[in-house]
Amino acid sequence: MTITDDSLAALDAADPLAAFRDRFRLPSDVVYLVGNSLGALPEAARTRVTEVVDEEWGDGLVGSWNTAGWFDKPRTAGELVAPLIGAAPGQVVVCDTTSLNLYKVLFAALALRPGRGVVVAEAHAFPTDLYMIEGALGTQEGKQLRLIGRDAPDLADALDSDVAVVVLSHVDYRTSALADLAEATRQAQGCGALVVWDLCHSVGALPVELDAAGADFAVGCTYKYLNGGPGSPAFVYVARRHQDTARQPLSGWHGHRAPFAFTVGYEPADGIDRFRTSTPQILSYAPLEASLRLWQDVDLGQVRSKSLALTGLFMDLVESRLGDAGVEVVTPRDERRGSHVALRHEHSYGIVRALADRGVLGDFRAPDTMRFGFAPLYLRHADVGNAVDAMEEAIAARAWERPEYANRPTVT
Amino acid sequence: MTITDDSLAALDAADPLAAFRDRFRLPSDVVYLVGNSLGALPEAARTRVTEVVDEEWGDGLVGSWNTAGWFDKPRTAGELVAPLIGAAPGQVVVCDTTSLNLYKVLFAALALRPGRGVVVAEAHAFPTDLYMIEGALGTQEGKQLRLIGRDAPDLADALDSDVAVVVLSHVDYRTSALADLAEATRQAQGCGALVVWDLCHSVGALPVELDAAGADFAVGCTYKYLNGGPGSPAFVYVARRHQDTARQPLSGWHGHRAPFAFTVGYEPADGIDRFRTSTPQILSYAPLEASLRLWQDVDLGQVRSKSLALTGLFMDLVESRLGDAGVEVVTPRDERRGSHVALRHEHSYGIVRALADRGVLGDFRAPDTMRFGFAPLYLRHADVGNAVDAMEEAIAARAWERPEYANRPTVT
Repeated sequence: MTITDDSLAALDAADPLAAFRDRFRLPSDVVYLVGNSLGALPEAARTRVTEVVDEEWGDGLVGSWNTAGWFDKPRTAGELVAPLIGAAPGQVVVCDTTSLNLYKVLFAALALRPGRGVVVAEAHAFPTDLYMIEGALGTQEGKQLRLIGRDAPDLADALDSDVAVVVLSHVDYRTSALADLAEATRQAQGCGALVVWDLCHSVGALPVELDAAGADFAVGCTYKYLNGGPGSPAFVYVARRHQDTARQPLSGWHGHRAPFAFTVGYEPADGIDRFRTSTPQILSYAPLEASLRLWQDVDLGQVRSKSLALTGLFMDLVESRLGDAGVEVVTPRDERRGSHVALRHEHSYGIVRALADRGVLGDFRAPDTMRFGFAPLYLRHADVGNAVDAMEEAIAARAWERPEYANRPTVT
Repeated sequence: MTITDDSLAALDAADPLAAFRDRFRLPSDVVYLVGNSLGALPEAARTRVTEVVDEEWGDGLVGSWNTAGWFDKPRTAGELVAPLIGAAPGQVVVCDTTSLNLYKVLFAALALRPGRGVVVAEAHAFPTDLYMIEGALGTQEGKQLRLIGRDAPDLADALDSDVAVVVLSHVDYRTSALADLAEATRQAQGCGALVVWDLCHSVGALPVELDAAGADFAVGCTYKYLNGGPGSPAFVYVARRHQDTARQPLSGWHGHRAPFAFTVGYEPADGIDRFRTSTPQILSYAPLEASLRLWQDVDLGQVRSKSLALTGLFMDLVESRLGDAGVEVVTPRDERRGSHVALRHEHSYGIVRALADRGVLGDFRAPDTMRFGFAPLYLRHADVGNAVDAMEEAIAARAWERPEYANRPTVT
């Protein structure tokens, strides 16, 4: 394969998503390959934040809970997320965090499967999922956690008639491996369990089809490929068929049937609203709303095609140019992958640091993994070429031998 | 008592807090008496939000989790809240919502009192407190709720050796009645229970002295008198003596001892950090930080004096000028009150609507209560006079008979 700057420029010229890049504010000297961790700033988000602060809060004051629709933000944002995860209206709210939403649906699912005491999860899940399950099960008698990758080799082996709930990641946060959402759902439901999908690393990176798969529950964050801003509120999906019977314990007033009746007893709202908890952090919805409106103009099929093109190109170039230098591609080479790529090298930490000094931002995961995210809305094929060039330089220069790149833990 | 415009102006001229008003952006045609629900916009908050969006997110991107201190926001904001609630450092984090923080400390407190099965709360508490307790107890065997005002006439009668936890409001959200925090703490602890204080309606309205009272736990919001912005994150206080043994079930990765070690098992962080859950909603911390820095310049004793002066003046004027027109003061006339005043009138809804049309904003609570908050940082004695003038006009005009003020439920 011969890749030239010209051929990359030609790919960018033919890219149907190319114009979206101008809708983001990116530093000009940076190749930003950490959009899988924190998405870039949409220009429209800046305007929207100022509106919310000056007009809605400053001028509208407390009346904006009604007049600016603040009270309904979890629902209105939820309806904007819904088409991105293949959900018909009325099944998604945006509120709290992924961890908290997982806690809610875990209880809801356990209560829907009385008599079953096992929660199945993945040992390689993003750890907070495991911590929240542990916290939830610690408050329950007779429930236990069974880990794929520790207590059972795979999903099929983990399943039996004791399993109430299965918590799965759609895209693995380290390797980028993509699960077969429909097939795993079918498999878990086949043994009578309910499934909770963690979509953090797939939403906005590829089409997700929850309704079509007959999924039960899903949670995910909005600050990665959705570009909602640092720590923007998370979403929770509950299939309509479960909504009347599902109950969750974080039963604050915004999930109440009549929040302003100020009655003593909790009565859950009809539908998805019962998965709300309490006062939404309005400022954090402002950039997210602007970003989700931008997504209304996006074709997810084009996103997926470009994601596969960028990640495929990156892996091809890394293998052909850096394979001999000891860089190993961890991410699956077939299409069962998300939109980031994981590489392994014994000096990954130093390489990531050296790349950053060359304006190419990726991240490091101990002990020896580098991750590079390829957000299709604002990255170009040329960026892929530049990233590989920079990595080749860093490795040729044995950058990890420089004292300022000495290995140490990083926090991103 | 004779109150003239001149005498009010003289009081404002002598007000040591008068200059703070200029640090807020308030509509010029409004007397804002709902600061007990949503505080006004500090000018510094506007600048800070733009910095966070453009510089920290737009330019700094994911690196800002370290370089801009995003990861530590719950702690740094917590240390700014601490002096406002009489807490030595290391006992407060700002994260999640009041409801969620109540859930955490409730579990922590229950686990610290094994063998005791009763949670005492107030039937007249802000309802979300009761809903969260109900949600938490619903996941536990053999625990029950005992309500002051329903199951027992007062705190003393509610206490016995079965009581594990007592949840109390410092200031009543309806009547503004102020509890004796030190005495109620002593009383509950005297029977072996732990106390959780809800400070939503007192923080920023008067000095709160948690450490001095030997309090156990407290929660509260930052968007009322603290002016942190709509839905700004809440705080949780855990007395240092409980921190090593307290455990809470919303055990997300940000409360982990080593969040970036990505280990499978949860190990709580030392100290107050174990009360964090997951990724903080960074945008929502931006205005709050600016507001909390403003509070560093404020003398809480002056706040309390002015609060008592404004609310006292308002009640005096209402009683002398509107008592005969059927307006009843619900708020205690002695100093056992917070910084808002509750009035009752059979046409409260119409009066509140008519006042709003005159630029005087208060709120209505069914069935017949009006509430008016007097935030000492930005209100003037003259505002009190104007509010009473407007109410007198509205009542004289029998505003409630106008069809556009017909009674209907309101959402604020």
